Amino acid sequence: MREAGRDRRARRNAAGGPAQRPWRRVDNHLAPVEPLSADQIEQIHHASLRVLEEIGIEFLHEEARAILKAAGAEPVPGSPLVRLDRGLVLERIAEAPSEVTLHARNPAHNLRIGGNTVNFATVGSAPNAHDRQGGRRPGCHADFLNFVRLGQALNCIHLIGGYPVEPIDLPPATRHLDCLAAFVTLTDKAFHAYSLGHARITDGIEIARIARGISREQLLREPSLFTIVNSNSPLRLDGPMLEGIMAMARAGQLMVLTPFTLAGAMAPATVAGALTLQNAEALAGIAFAQMVRPGAPCAYGGFTSNVDMKSGAPAFGTPEYVQATLAGGQLARRYRLPYRSSNANAANTLDAQAAYESMMSLQAAVMSHANIVLHAAGWMEGGLVASFEKMILDAELIQMLAETVQPIRVDEDTIGLDAIREVGPGGHFFGSAHTLARYETAFYPPLVSDWRNSRQWAEAGEPTAYDRCEKLVAEVLAGFEPPPLDPGIAEELREFVARRKAEGGAPA
Amino acid sequence: MREAGRDRRARRNAAGGPAQRPWRRVDNHLAPVEPLSADQIEQIHHASLRVLEEIGIEFLHEEARAILKAAGAEPVPGSPLVRLDRGLVLERIAEAPSEVTLHARNPAHNLRIGGNTVNFATVGSAPNAHDRQGGRRPGCHADFLNFVRLGQALNCIHLIGGYPVEPIDLPPATRHLDCLAAFVTLTDKAFHAYSLGHARITDGIEIARIARGISREQLLREPSLFTIVNSNSPLRLDGPMLEGIMAMARAGQLMVLTPFTLAGAMAPATVAGALTLQNAEALAGIAFAQMVRPGAPCAYGGFTSNVDMKSGAPAFGTPEYVQATLAGGQLARRYRLPYRSSNANAANTLDAQAAYESMMSLQAAVMSHANIVLHAAGWMEGGLVASFEKMILDAELIQMLAETVQPIRVDEDTIGLDAIREVGPGGHFFGSAHTLARYETAFYPPLVSDWRNSRQWAEAGEPTAYDRCEKLVAEVLAGFEPPPLDPGIAEELREFVARRKAEGGAPA
Repeated sequence: MREAGRDRRARRNAAGGPAQRPWRRVDNHLAPVEPLSADQIEQIHHASLRVLEEIGIEFLHEEARAILKAAGAEPVPGSPLVRLDRGLVLERIAEAPSEVTLHARNPAHNLRIGGNTVNFATVGSAPNAHDRQGGRRPGCHADFLNFVRLGQALNCIHLIGGYPVEPIDLPPATRHLDCLAAFVTLTDKAFHAYSLGHARITDGIEIARIARGISREQLLREPSLFTIVNSNSPLRLDGPMLEGIMAMARAGQLMVLTPFTLAGAMAPATVAGALTLQNAEALAGIAFAQMVRPGAPCAYGGFTSNVDMKSGAPAFGTPEYVQATLAGGQLARRYRLPYRSSNANAANTLDAQAAYESMMSLQAAVMSHANIVLHAAGWMEGGLVASFEKMILDAELIQMLAETVQPIRVDEDTIGLDAIREVGPGGHFFGSAHTLARYETAFYPPLVSDWRNSRQWAEAGEPTAYDRCEKLVAEVLAGFEPPPLDPGIAEELREFVARRKAEGGAPA
Repeated sequence: MREAGRDRRARRNAAGGPAQRPWRRVDNHLAPVEPLSADQIEQIHHASLRVLEEIGIEFLHEEARAILKAAGAEPVPGSPLVRLDRGLVLERIAEAPSEVTLHARNPAHNLRIGGNTVNFATVGSAPNAHDRQGGRRPGCHADFLNFVRLGQALNCIHLIGGYPVEPIDLPPATRHLDCLAAFVTLTDKAFHAYSLGHARITDGIEIARIARGISREQLLREPSLFTIVNSNSPLRLDGPMLEGIMAMARAGQLMVLTPFTLAGAMAPATVAGALTLQNAEALAGIAFAQMVRPGAPCAYGGFTSNVDMKSGAPAFGTPEYVQATLAGGQLARRYRLPYRSSNANAANTLDAQAAYESMMSLQAAVMSHANIVLHAAGWMEGGLVASFEKMILDAELIQMLAETVQPIRVDEDTIGLDAIREVGPGGHFFGSAHTLARYETAFYPPLVSDWRNSRQWAEAGEPTAYDRCEKLVAEVLAGFEPPPLDPGIAEELREFVARRKAEGGAPA
């Protein structure tokens, strides 16, 4: 019931900073929007199975091919290609759970990954950072830490979705240790580790275990880490990613199989063709994970967009992107798998385009019933930039959509027939008892939107949304306090990181 | 079929100006989004009928009350209040057609008002105009004419929705004559006339007849004009609006009954309460129109939003606005009536807020299956300003959503299994025959979005969406040519306007 949860005190962030909505699980009470008919879904389903049977997919890893062969797939001799029979694929993906709890070190931040629950993650993997004062620059550790702080401080963010920006001033071999340790010390939310070879992902799994202070056995039962596995579309899974799948499946952690099927570049220049390729690659990866360990938690990732045909530049938040996102949700449900989408845009600055392209993507993600919305806050320039101000703007968008998908309360009290009678024709509800009783909690309070009239707004110096976001970034960071961390866990984490650094980390 | 219609030549506006999508009827192939259960709809339905039965609604017009009384309603003696029995209301509204063709003087621009067809109208009724160079100023005739030209030149605009801006430099008594004549000479699209008393609306009906060169009898069969009838919420219909209903119903023209139920001000501070009041007022107006003339075309208008509880300022594009918009569509379908919504926002400048609030409103309108989206392009500051640049920005939003709701073509050709086979693992689709065959028409070509990479964008001077809209306004206006008009019709129109001016127009 929407009104019930709106306590004004709860709008204040515990760590200081601006009024915002409290942390909450977002269940989407609206039915998913479904552009494809059941027949069309079956057409794409069958075509993608033909791709795996007739063309096959490259697995660039010996051990992976051996596992596939043992499970009944057909490696093509003298080639990395493996052909997968449809019976084998369907049998295996049926073993993946349709819903999983992703555990955080703060149990209040555990997440339901499945059903109608939508979880929003920070931007991940941008090579550059941007804020308005400092401009655009290659990612560094200091910016990385501030993005992670924002990810913790913003209540609407459920997960830390990879490095918000790549800290290239940290040595590559040990970068993952510093970054993962920061996720644990600066946040108490669930987080991501990269599937970039065996050593890195294994360190990630160990850090997730240490963070929760649990045994490997308990970790196996309680997924506490997630990874994005991108196929190299078309039809290729590389060695580091396959090592990620093998380690994560064996440890029982959550994998999100996400082909990057950009229509007109890495995929056919049609929504149907790109979805067919996406589906083939996602199913192949998920089936492989199940061969490694039956029941390993997997999500179906959709990341189909299109290029600008004039320039070849990737475009996001387009009509085709929305259609593919909504259809991807249908495909994931066809296989009873959790679904992952994104909040993507191709804007170069925090202008109207950034807002409308993001709104197209985010609405599609929410209405597709995506369970993980990666890059939900801070992504710009088609993923080349993580923007501090955009992260705040997106928090407003996320909060608004999270509120929109709540049920509307309809009962005697909310209908307020007595209030309508009392106020009568030509009257005003502002002073009525019905209004006064819900004065503080009636409507969504905005984070960024400025509803002052034009005179007041002019007197305030005509601030734009960009100005307000800039101010809020500073406010949130100034008020940041890391969440409490058990000293024993902190010590074990320090020791682990120190030991692994001494061992050389993950050499190239 | 999406691909079929994408002819590059068609992207060029006949009247010059930028590449844009061709005129088309927009059928929304996605199912409407419905936040209320059938039970909740019935609760609101019954509560609103109780409002009309137990409280009643004021009809501030003698003749209207006489008509109501003759039809079986209960005027309260010595008061403008009329109580309406639920049986009477339901019987009458059942007589309104569920779908109507709204005729334009160019038959190619005739509109289906009903079913899953969405029609987009220009901004209407703003007291102020704004463009970036000229700033904010009270509406004038010159600005009025330029907005009307934009409404004609933008292919995605289906109707002229009232005066985009009020031309206060024209004398009030004859203003409507100049404005309506301009709709006919500068556009060949269907248009709106204000229900501001008998004289003005009767002149509007006559000008609509002259524009089409038809008889009154044919006009009666072929609605060619629409009017918005706003009730003065709560529970009051004023004299000028009632004269509008009576004249329009008798002439068989389209009325859109739209209560302005701002939750927390003119309506209860709950979505359910505001919808109940909206529903009561809309049904009362539509029932009354049917009493004047059974079968008179009526649409159900929804315009429920909420105030900012801190300041009392109206807010738009909020979560509550979206919920009320979607629920309004359900109520209209409950009564088998066409539905009207809006593209509303409360932003003071063309920034990210203007874009995300508009996107919230516009998406809700489209997904509610609104048949008329008023204020679809150019509305800002909660309706106090018509903005030239915003009109272009909204055209981009409208074009994108119109494309998004088209069916996805799924067949052997679009799936492109042969292309996937030909390109193979690790290949690239950019040069494939499948891609080249649809190179020109594959994807939505943007009007405003800038997808250049950051270097190219910086070299171009870092233009924002606002800059691009500013440029496009000038381009469209520079290329404007009025559509052809039969000289006989032009002459008849001139004579009518001259005669009515000589008679004094519509004195206050």
